[in-house]
Amino acid sequence: MPHLNLEYSDNLRELNVDVLLLRLNHALVGSGQFADEADIKSRAEAFKHYRVGTAPGERAFAHVRLAILSGRSLEVKTQLSTSLLDVLRDAIPEQPGLDIQLCVEVLDIDREPYAKARLPG
Amino acid sequence: MPHLNLEYSDNLRELNVDVLLLRLNHALVGSGQFADEADIKSRAEAFKHYRVGTAPGERAFAHVRLAILSGRSLEVKTQLSTSLLDVLRDAIPEQPGLDIQLCVEVLDIDREPYAKARLPG
Amino acid sequence: MPHLNLEYSDNLRELNVDVLLLRLNHALVGSGQFADEADIKSRAEAFKHYRVGTAPGERAFAHVRLAILSGRSLEVKTQLSTSLLDVLRDAIPEQPGLDIQLCVEVLDIDREPYAKARLPG
Repeated sequence: MPHLNLEYSDNLRELNVDVLLLRLNHALVGSGQFADEADIKSRAEAFKHYRVGTAPGERAFAHVRLAILSGRSLEVKTQLSTSLLDVLRDAIPEQPGLDIQLCVEVLDIDREPYAKARLPG
Repeated sequence: MPHLNLEYSDNLRELNVDVLLLRLNHALVGSGQFADEADIKSRAEAFKHYRVGTAPGERAFAHVRLAILSGRSLEVKTQLSTSLLDVLRDAIPEQPGLDIQLCVEVLDIDREPYAKARLPG
Repeated sequence: MPHLNLEYSDNLRELNVDVLLLRLNHALVGSGQFADEADIKSRAEAFKHYRVGTAPGERAFAHVRLAILSGRSLEVKTQLSTSLLDVLRDAIPEQPGLDIQLCVEVLDIDREPYAKARLPG
């Protein structure tokens, strides 16, 4: 906890996704909500097969799903989504001729049945 | 919003996934539930590593996860899942010797912390 | 139902993911919670782009997300996550120099709008 999944259409060709993941993680650390930076597990996937809407014209999206243990307030969740969206906006500039949607979703992981082990190596 | 994820086993070799995504999006537009067709962001992923059950024999699945902003009624959700399942059935015919499962799940995105930006290009 | 997604960082190079999926499914069958073994649909994805935390040093993760139809008790969910974590621990041994996190999350699929068809082939 937390888990972050970045999903995006692969027509965002200029995106440096490794840099973006690190920046997203820094935003989460900077929120002060997570005691150990190592808890933040982020991953990204570019989709080759996607479809935005039904009309013609090239469109793109980047969607962050942040899953955190249940119990945080709406205010905290909104701060988290706002700061992650800011990171997306910095990383993904406007492109002429490409309609881009950026979204951030925050969802709860049910705290009680969550099970975890750490193998420190 | 909405976000649609199609996950399927890659032994559904005949599947034209781009056509299927467009048909799923048309079904969502046709539901009248979404004001702007461009809001529908659908993507698909074929899984190379999957396992259905424990018994031998070739099996396949296609699973649609539709995530919509919270607040819609159960009736609306059921209409959405039914119409998406109809699209899956049309796109994925029975195949002798292959046990196929088709599923549609509808889940809520927590509305308040959801953050979004659009870069129209 | 149930759906199981295994997501892991692709630096877990030794992992035999097909064997692991079968073992996870056997653990679910063994729980006695699922009437038909064929209902268990598991899939795995290795992520090439991931980032655990912000500090340097190689880190890895494996995360199981088990989605089951709503209505089961917390006790049942905890038994499921514990048994799946045991399977992960068996499959993913400690590795010197690699900080590995293993996690299991159990979430509900909203039962009413869930739609399903089976094409027995």
